[in-house]
Amino acid sequence: MKVSYFNVRGLGEMIRLLLTDKQISFEDEKFTKDEWQNIKPKMQFGQVPCLSFEDEQIVQTGAIMRHLGRVHGLNGQNEQETTFIDMFFEGIRDLHSKYTTMIYQNYENGKEPFLKDVLPVELEKLEKLFKTYGNGDAFVAGAKESYADYALFEEIDVLLVLSQSALDHFPKLKNFHYRFSQRPNLKAYLSKRASLNVPINGNGKQ
Amino acid sequence: MKVSYFNVRGLGEMIRLLLTDKQISFEDEKFTKDEWQNIKPKMQFGQVPCLSFEDEQIVQTGAIMRHLGRVHGLNGQNEQETTFIDMFFEGIRDLHSKYTTMIYQNYENGKEPFLKDVLPVELEKLEKLFKTYGNGDAFVAGAKESYADYALFEEIDVLLVLSQSALDHFPKLKNFHYRFSQRPNLKAYLSKRASLNVPINGNGKQ
Ligand SMILES: N[C@@H](CCC(=O)N[C@@H](CS)C(=O)NCC(=O)O)C(=O)O
Ligand SMILES: N[C@@H](CCC(=O)N[C@@H](CS)C(=O)NCC(=O)O)C(=O)O
Repeated sequence: MKVSYFNVRGLGEMIRLLLTDKQISFEDEKFTKDEWQNIKPKMQFGQVPCLSFEDEQIVQTGAIMRHLGRVHGLNGQNEQETTFIDMFFEGIRDLHSKYTTMIYQNYENGKEPFLKDVLPVELEKLEKLFKTYGNGDAFVAGAKESYADYALFEEIDVLLVLSQSALDHFPKLKNFHYRFSQRPNLKAYLSKRASLNVPINGNGKQ
Repeated sequence: MKVSYFNVRGLGEMIRLLLTDKQISFEDEKFTKDEWQNIKPKMQFGQVPCLSFEDEQIVQTGAIMRHLGRVHGLNGQNEQETTFIDMFFEGIRDLHSKYTTMIYQNYENGKEPFLKDVLPVELEKLEKLFKTYGNGDAFVAGAKESYADYALFEEIDVLLVLSQSALDHFPKLKNFHYRFSQRPNLKAYLSKRASLNVPINGNGKQ
């Protein structure tokens, strides 16, 4: 199995996190913008991330994550949970679009308004939807982790780089982020990644 | 079951088409922009479309469509098909985003460049991915219809309003659009919709 994406975190990182945490071995193909020109024509929609097997090539971040979710037991325990996880994941994607629009099109003037006006409203919705379970040891869908947890973790992780205090008013999300970062396989990966200084976004802004 | 959306086609229409074609009865709640202000706070992400049942409220177009796909046998016949359908659907969504950006932000100056430079490239990808089956009587995934067919049909339908010749170089998509429009339940619905003059987009552009 191979994950193909630019040599940044971007949309590819949640896939890498899921596979790493679940100890599913994969080739982590990373390329530069120059190398991309030769790869682009091979992608069904001319874009990445891409997950490929000997006989199948999957593109579209959502399709990849949901496929991995189904195959590796990270897709909820019944129809209602599966739908909830899907909905939550799509909500994270909407927030991420707003984030990338700011990062790529309006970083200098847009960062402060994003932190002040956009982010608190969006995070409030995720905080409210995040399920509780037991004495707080919960995931997006409650008792068990799902593919949406990897997307949420990466999203929060990126937002905390944008502003260390971004999560201060969202205790459930903040607590989730801390707990998730302590999962042994992720902890090792995150520490290695930090030492490699992998950029978050393609334009170096963060 | 209730579908809630603005009184336009927009993102809600593919849901209405699926339910209508499959003869799944639903309440079609449509509201104006003025009425929306009272509804918005009840939505998990402050947006619609929304599909609701007595004890569950689903938002996010993709989550709604995939839920209906799973429950009504419109989600492929094995893991590979399910993933392909998901990927195709996400590709349609990407095209639709480009379409709505043009419609809402740059209709006057953006329509011609969209038709000339963007659309042919995007449709070429969908034409290539669209599966063939038997003597041409195919759906997105080949032999059997899926939730992605409703999204594709609506997308093409809207593009043909933008330009009657939009599909001229894409015979598989054009043929699919014609055949799908002739499904009896859809045919009746489309003819009724035409007589009601339901707008495609919220700003009246099309
Ligand atoms: N809807 C797609 C969007 C993928 C996308 O935007 N990919 C970007 C990188 S984040 C890309 O491949 N850009 C290079 C290009 O378009 O040439 C998904 O969710 O995977
Ligand atoms: N990611 C969402 C986007 C939904 C969306 O953009 N909804 C728009 C109408 S098409 C809306 O509710 N706008 C009103 C508002 O944001 O107040 C989905 O796929 O359902």
